[in-house]
Amino acid sequence: MDTRTGLPVVGMVGGGQLARMTHQAAISLGQSLRVLSASPDDSAALVAADVRIGTHTDLAALREFAKGCEAVTFDHEHVPTEHIEALEAEGVKIFPGSRALVFAQDKGRMRERLAALGAPVPRWRRAETAADIESFADGSWPVVVKAVRGGYDGRGVWMLSSAAEAAALLESGTPLLVEERVPLRRELAALVARSPFGQVAAYPVVETVQRDGICVEVLAPAPGLSEARAIEAQQLAIDLANALGVVGLLAVELFETAEGIVVNELAMRPHNSGHWTIEGARTSQFEQHLRAVLDYPMGATTLTAPAVVMANVLGGAAGGISIDERLHHLFATDPGARVHLYGKQVRPGRKIGHVTVLGDDMTSVRARAARAAKWLQEGS
Amino acid sequence: MDTRTGLPVVGMVGGGQLARMTHQAAISLGQSLRVLSASPDDSAALVAADVRIGTHTDLAALREFAKGCEAVTFDHEHVPTEHIEALEAEGVKIFPGSRALVFAQDKGRMRERLAALGAPVPRWRRAETAADIESFADGSWPVVVKAVRGGYDGRGVWMLSSAAEAAALLESGTPLLVEERVPLRRELAALVARSPFGQVAAYPVVETVQRDGICVEVLAPAPGLSEARAIEAQQLAIDLANALGVVGLLAVELFETAEGIVVNELAMRPHNSGHWTIEGARTSQFEQHLRAVLDYPMGATTLTAPAVVMANVLGGAAGGISIDERLHHLFATDPGARVHLYGKQVRPGRKIGHVTVLGDDMTSVRARAARAAKWLQEGS
Repeated sequence: MDTRTGLPVVGMVGGGQLARMTHQAAISLGQSLRVLSASPDDSAALVAADVRIGTHTDLAALREFAKGCEAVTFDHEHVPTEHIEALEAEGVKIFPGSRALVFAQDKGRMRERLAALGAPVPRWRRAETAADIESFADGSWPVVVKAVRGGYDGRGVWMLSSAAEAAALLESGTPLLVEERVPLRRELAALVARSPFGQVAAYPVVETVQRDGICVEVLAPAPGLSEARAIEAQQLAIDLANALGVVGLLAVELFETAEGIVVNELAMRPHNSGHWTIEGARTSQFEQHLRAVLDYPMGATTLTAPAVVMANVLGGAAGGISIDERLHHLFATDPGARVHLYGKQVRPGRKIGHVTVLGDDMTSVRARAARAAKWLQEGS
Repeated sequence: MDTRTGLPVVGMVGGGQLARMTHQAAISLGQSLRVLSASPDDSAALVAADVRIGTHTDLAALREFAKGCEAVTFDHEHVPTEHIEALEAEGVKIFPGSRALVFAQDKGRMRERLAALGAPVPRWRRAETAADIESFADGSWPVVVKAVRGGYDGRGVWMLSSAAEAAALLESGTPLLVEERVPLRRELAALVARSPFGQVAAYPVVETVQRDGICVEVLAPAPGLSEARAIEAQQLAIDLANALGVVGLLAVELFETAEGIVVNELAMRPHNSGHWTIEGARTSQFEQHLRAVLDYPMGATTLTAPAVVMANVLGGAAGGISIDERLHHLFATDPGARVHLYGKQVRPGRKIGHVTVLGDDMTSVRARAARAAKWLQEGS
């Protein structure tokens, strides 16, 4: 507890934009997020008052960081499982716990567990040799190969058209799995939050639009999704949160096919597919995550407008006018667009911010969001 | 400019809750608010990354603080006018400027200027002696006596039933003015923001409800206010912002009488009557103030729901359950209430936070907001 305020201290490991936006939410709750950041120039470190410099792979730094925190949580999934287990053994309240988080860290264990729970997953297997991939494909190419650990935003995912292409990947020694290329109509995401008490709150199911493996747009609610399918996706996410013992947010990335829904990935933290909730839902995912890890009752997840679209702003090529000038132009062209910039150095393809637009009609809201993101995209 | 982000630095003098909430808004714009705070335990100092400790009456501290800021602005009106003039002479962009701000600092000069502009003001005069007050009242008691400078939240305002009661006030040497007690129906507030370019954006007119001189509730939009009266109030605020050369927010506190509207007070900063805009308007007053002082185009001021009510949370008597426990109870009883706690030590009557509720029906929204504030009020 912060003795100056009588309110709890939450520590977040990692200083990226998720921690940055969680700090914004913490301020409303009377808190000040404690951030473990690798550098003082990280996105969250630029704006938070209580920043500790250290890396997530350093157990001593994690242990020191956790002192005085009511709860410790994560901006990413890269903290070694054994470090989380060590902290848990010492009595640190760390959420999600190691036994849940491992299913977001390790795609192999995730798929095994989901299959055991009867959840819909793509056909898959672990791949140790080219022969494993060849026999899995059985002449039906392409197949998808993924690194079991550490992938993010399209990194660690490869689409292969022959076993020969797998050679370089296999030689690197990275544990891999191979799975069918799902004949998807589109991608969906179901976001829920669960508290230690066991309360679960589910957000409306959204459609996520990817380009080059990176999420570029999120449409809330998913247009044209039947109520039955939406409830099925929410129920699946709730069941998984309960079965895996998740505390905090669980984002379930889904493929929608002609037959139904299939789980693609799990994330146990604030997620890009939930950034729209800052303005688009009564309680943002960031506040919801804080409420969950502190075992507060969950906030309302209702939409604040009929149509909400979030568009990511990716770094463009160098040159052109500055981000500040672009902001001027955007504000002039769309006074209702909601901008979130992460304070990051621009690099091509890097997520440097997002824009949210709200309104009554999905088509026009989507066009406005895309235009707003384009205005902010440097070098475009 | 912050060279790490390519985005501007705004400095705010004063570390109260207005700076705290402005920092939240700054984060979305890719910024980190620089705060000049008297103490590291001040509301904004607890959550901002760039905090300088110093007082607003120290010119050297102000000068050092302003270095590297694109714009300097205020959390309160207490910076000495001559200090602001000195900084302006040195080329600091400080908003609102001294020539505008003086009308929010000095109630005498404000009333003179408003009268000269033809704006509706209560009948008034400066009061130097008991005879001044006696002759002003002309047998018609009570009258209102105000300190010309420094009043806030009911401090510096007295309702007198006889000239004898003025004796102690006059003896203190504080410059005073006396004005008629306006036969008001209710109080309203008109909030606008103006940029150096001259763009002005007006928020919907709200009703403010006071108790013991402190604002306890704000209803947006003001219930039952005719469109003509609303436009009149907005136009008055726009005209005043232009005539006084305000840059940033201008809150015009109004009395509504049987005959029309009368100006009560002016504030040139984020204002309690605008806290509802965080969730209730497309652009919050805090972001709007930043946009204005940076000369960005203004954001949309449209309501996000048909009825929005903000209720202040005042510190209660000592004892009872903790603020954290109260938060648990509130979240359990109303998952849709939006809470803002300022991280302040609780003292009876002190504003320690506010709650905002949004919905379709003003009566039920108002009841929910009042209940939510009561839940959080310690010792109640």
